Amino acid sequence: MKSLLLVAHGSRRKESNEEVAKLADVIKQKTHQQFANIKHAFLELAEPSIEDAVDDLVNAGAKQIVVLPYFLSAGRHVHEDVPEIINAKRAQYADLDLIMAPYLGESNEIPDVLISLAVNPN
Amino acid sequence: MKSLLLVAHGSRRKESNEEVAKLADVIKQKTHQQFANIKHAFLELAEPSIEDAVDDLVNAGAKQIVVLPYFLSAGRHVHEDVPEIINAKRAQYADLDLIMAPYLGESNEIPDVLISLAVNPN
Repeated sequence: MKSLLLVAHGSRRKESNEEVAKLADVIKQKTHQQFANIKHAFLELAEPSIEDAVDDLVNAGAKQIVVLPYFLSAGRHVHEDVPEIINAKRAQYADLDLIMAPYLGESNEIPDVLISLAVNPN
Repeated sequence: MKSLLLVAHGSRRKESNEEVAKLADVIKQKTHQQFANIKHAFLELAEPSIEDAVDDLVNAGAKQIVVLPYFLSAGRHVHEDVPEIINAKRAQYADLDLIMAPYLGESNEIPDVLISLAVNPN
């Protein structure tokens, strides 16, 4: 069974990082049948790092991990920084299947989510 | 009828800013009945500014504008910078109704969007 790693940028604001942890928890509650394990990680400025989270998932038995970038735009972080870390982990764990999912902003559901917020803003 | 202003952070990468413009276009195509006018704007690093976009909407006849922050977390930008600009515009245009919508990351639809991406990552 796949594990899921939600990767966010990380912030100096503790509250922003906690939002990401909470989001991973909500996903966990909504998907207890679909993923063996669900964790969050941060590219920078906060813990756990992506490296540590992958190690934890592998130590917990993961053979396949979906890495999901919680980013809105496809900048350097999505195109270079996260893949670079993931590629290093692929080299480290030959038997591990690390799958990069699209980043959040690429989802074709985003326009409808924004429309819901715009139509009922209060 | 309300107008809609999609507000993003703005990037040094032209492509990221173009993604926001494209997103506003997709919303326009999906909502031609619901909003009189739809524009995008950037807090920094790119044009148009929020100030200029509000002016443009007002000059086009807007009496009510929903301001929708395209941000994932509630940091200084969402809590201070955008509201400060919006409050200045409220002071400038006494008859204009400027409504702050929740920021994208606050939508309770986000977990399901992430789950869709995670379950079908390819």
